[in-house]
Amino acid sequence: MMWELKSISFWRAVFAEFFATMLFVFFGLGFTMRWSPGPMNVLLVSLGFGFVLAALVQAVGHVSGAHLNPAVTFAYLLGAQLSIFRCVMYMVAQLLGAVAGAAVLYGVTPPSVRGNLGLNTLHAGVGLGQGTAVEIFLTLQFVLCIFATTDIRRNGFMGSAAIIIGFSLTVGHFFGLYYTGCGMNPARSFAPAVLTRNFGNHWVFWVGPLIGGAIAALLYDFILFPRMRGLSERLAILKGAHPPEAEGQQEPRSDPIELKTQAL
Amino acid sequence: MMWELKSISFWRAVFAEFFATMLFVFFGLGFTMRWSPGPMNVLLVSLGFGFVLAALVQAVGHVSGAHLNPAVTFAYLLGAQLSIFRCVMYMVAQLLGAVAGAAVLYGVTPPSVRGNLGLNTLHAGVGLGQGTAVEIFLTLQFVLCIFATTDIRRNGFMGSAAIIIGFSLTVGHFFGLYYTGCGMNPARSFAPAVLTRNFGNHWVFWVGPLIGGAIAALLYDFILFPRMRGLSERLAILKGAHPPEAEGQQEPRSDPIELKTQAL
Amino acid sequence: MMWELKSISFWRAVFAEFFATMLFVFFGLGFTMRWSPGPMNVLLVSLGFGFVLAALVQAVGHVSGAHLNPAVTFAYLLGAQLSIFRCVMYMVAQLLGAVAGAAVLYGVTPPSVRGNLGLNTLHAGVGLGQGTAVEIFLTLQFVLCIFATTDIRRNGFMGSAAIIIGFSLTVGHFFGLYYTGCGMNPARSFAPAVLTRNFGNHWVFWVGPLIGGAIAALLYDFILFPRMRGLSERLAILKGAHPPEAEGQQEPRSDPIELKTQAL
Amino acid sequence: MMWELKSISFWRAVFAEFFATMLFVFFGLGFTMRWSPGPMNVLLVSLGFGFVLAALVQAVGHVSGAHLNPAVTFAYLLGAQLSIFRCVMYMVAQLLGAVAGAAVLYGVTPPSVRGNLGLNTLHAGVGLGQGTAVEIFLTLQFVLCIFATTDIRRNGFMGSAAIIIGFSLTVGHFFGLYYTGCGMNPARSFAPAVLTRNFGNHWVFWVGPLIGGAIAALLYDFILFPRMRGLSERLAILKGAHPPEAEGQQEPRSDPIELKTQAL
Repeated sequence: MMWELKSISFWRAVFAEFFATMLFVFFGLGFTMRWSPGPMNVLLVSLGFGFVLAALVQAVGHVSGAHLNPAVTFAYLLGAQLSIFRCVMYMVAQLLGAVAGAAVLYGVTPPSVRGNLGLNTLHAGVGLGQGTAVEIFLTLQFVLCIFATTDIRRNGFMGSAAIIIGFSLTVGHFFGLYYTGCGMNPARSFAPAVLTRNFGNHWVFWVGPLIGGAIAALLYDFILFPRMRGLSERLAILKGAHPPEAEGQQEPRSDPIELKTQAL
Repeated sequence: MMWELKSISFWRAVFAEFFATMLFVFFGLGFTMRWSPGPMNVLLVSLGFGFVLAALVQAVGHVSGAHLNPAVTFAYLLGAQLSIFRCVMYMVAQLLGAVAGAAVLYGVTPPSVRGNLGLNTLHAGVGLGQGTAVEIFLTLQFVLCIFATTDIRRNGFMGSAAIIIGFSLTVGHFFGLYYTGCGMNPARSFAPAVLTRNFGNHWVFWVGPLIGGAIAALLYDFILFPRMRGLSERLAILKGAHPPEAEGQQEPRSDPIELKTQAL
Repeated sequence: MMWELKSISFWRAVFAEFFATMLFVFFGLGFTMRWSPGPMNVLLVSLGFGFVLAALVQAVGHVSGAHLNPAVTFAYLLGAQLSIFRCVMYMVAQLLGAVAGAAVLYGVTPPSVRGNLGLNTLHAGVGLGQGTAVEIFLTLQFVLCIFATTDIRRNGFMGSAAIIIGFSLTVGHFFGLYYTGCGMNPARSFAPAVLTRNFGNHWVFWVGPLIGGAIAALLYDFILFPRMRGLSERLAILKGAHPPEAEGQQEPRSDPIELKTQAL
Repeated sequence: MMWELKSISFWRAVFAEFFATMLFVFFGLGFTMRWSPGPMNVLLVSLGFGFVLAALVQAVGHVSGAHLNPAVTFAYLLGAQLSIFRCVMYMVAQLLGAVAGAAVLYGVTPPSVRGNLGLNTLHAGVGLGQGTAVEIFLTLQFVLCIFATTDIRRNGFMGSAAIIIGFSLTVGHFFGLYYTGCGMNPARSFAPAVLTRNFGNHWVFWVGPLIGGAIAALLYDFILFPRMRGLSERLAILKGAHPPEAEGQQEPRSDPIELKTQAL
């Protein structure tokens, strides 16, 4: 843990999580603004969420890993790909960033179109259990795709990590927008809840994504494509005793180098 | 065949086919739910099917090859790229996964929007022969794209295999949704037929895709880009006497390796 | 020319042009079928054309170069990237394939939705000169993108050639569908004209794309990114005296090889 | 500066900026033409802008870097990635190209559908400060994505630079079309203002994008992924004393070479 506290690239990564999550929530919630009457433009909102995540993964993937999502960070923790300290700091940065993004959106948007700022709510007829199950499945496929994409054991000829991860988020929105407004990301759900002071059923958007991400992490790491790491190695990474393989904490250099974090 | 029965990565691949087909059908049929009146959102359904396939090919392509489709598995069998035993087990896993995915969807979706769970049916005015022909063409271009994409004789600078395969599935839906509801995948067609106990014209969605996949496999392997493999070599692969070149059966290792299955 | 006549891979390439153009026109015109009243679904038609081209470039790009379009073949001729003989044979194959594809579409589609089979026509208020100019610009950006993408002097880290070429075709349709129905491809325009026996203003859809392709070829090869090839070398390629650098005429081999045609 | 004045590839790059910006504005504004009554097709306009930028980045990225946007050129200047002289010439070429593209569009389009040629205006209820802030955020995420994508310190396994940059532009349009008509590019905003002689609030579409691009450049280069270049090195590049690392000024050669500009 000590090395991370003193590492400038660690704090740079935390700032990247804050700033990119701010942009993610600013744009994502912004896609849901209601400028015209009639039904929500599901295609716009879904493609928008996916494309903006793709752009941001491209922008800061090599700085912080571009989680931008407590459920993703939690899944990486279970996969022993980052330390507990980094996990906590990332989550704090994500939540602060999300609220900041929603606040900026609130400021630049005319009151008549703000609506509930893209608040996640259960559709009439969708029960709490159903909504939670949907959030689990949405996040499960998302984190599975992320784990497979950022698996450094695969070689690099896989096209753009940013775009496939964005498409996977779009998939979730195509499906989930009607059921739950599509959370898949507790930070994204937290921000409008804070701004509108509406925390009804808010736990669904924490429990669902965290469980979905956890299932995906364990499924990928122990069943689908197991890592043969020993328990002591995993514990050492969680404690932050030394840098894990695939994190973005290299000190930047001025000459072209092969970054280990290329995959993301 | 013996080596596969005892191979842990073989059973891992079978499980991956089950699980990923479950997710594919859960999301795919879910895109067809009718939350609002008016015509089907053809763009959402088509992009949704393509994007979710892309995400799942990315997620388990290196585990099982990510067929998720009996017509694709059958085409690979004709192309002598997997053993008969693997073919049978994959198909069983795909069908079970599809039914499981449809069942979960049934459970989480309010009755009022379930409709017929995305059942494939012929549009009024489209005859059985026409519908079958359409399914043949849809699947033909799809499997042709898959064979070309996963051809290990091509080098790797082709972008994302997952995304182009997803786009090819989207093409089929853009065209076929009106004609037949777009099958292209017997497992996807089978699941809602089981759940709604409606097997009218169900054979169209087996015969069409299987013939389309078969034509594509033979066309690619014998005319467009022939493989110069002898008959004995082909038979050996079909029997499972030894692992084929491009299958995902490496034992995972804990250090970064160049997987042969990278292309997918 | 002699070597091509006797080359099995030459005839394979000609067949690939025929077959892939058949599929391209079958799907492309199929996207324009009018299953429901109301305005044309411009998004579906545009994305559909782009995605099906992407799938087919992926499928046969390494076999024939996947021109599927006389304007593209003509542009490559001007760029001295194929012989006159190959150019003629490709164009014949493309036109026959296009008519075949339209005929199959005619056969599988209920009469009530066939309309004019996606015939290209000028929108009311768009003059002949304006329509031709639009077709020139549509094809210009398309062929420019193709030339840059398949330029073997660029290295391979450019993502998927198939997808960017497809997107470029989609761009043309987003813009041109209203003006001219978006030709950009004389074979695509020829097929419905034959099936519906309607050749009114048909020349626009030959002259526009051929001029647009020609401008793009000359612009790219002589101004934007000049090739320093001598006149004699260019003439030798046009005569078919020896194979050009970047064509897909390697004899397939049974072991993994680095194909020169990878980029496409 | 001297070497650039005499360099044929410098003037080639300037021409590429002119020509590609002409095409960009021709297509981009063309997507906004109103052929049918009813609300603007936000999806078509947004995807169209993104896809045409992708096609053009692919087409001339290796010639000029494919800025096509004074805000991008300004950001690269702040990042010391090009000389002041090149910056000025690029901007002049972009503005001339934009006006030319709008003029051609004006000529080929029936008067009844021209509208205001895609003029950027603030939506009712969006104040000057809000509109400027929105333009800042739109451009910030765009330039951040561009800087990360064209960073030669990252290795090449990132998929298509053209497509992710196009998607990032689409993100801006999904969000910004309602607020400001989505500028993100002073040249794109300038052209319809000239053609329609309407410069009301025009400064918003210069100040917003330039500030947004500047913030992104400084954020990326000094905080997120710092370059360890000394001040003297930066000044030398700005003066054009020697070619910067990642610009497209290699003399084309007739044999396949590894271009340094590959990433774009």
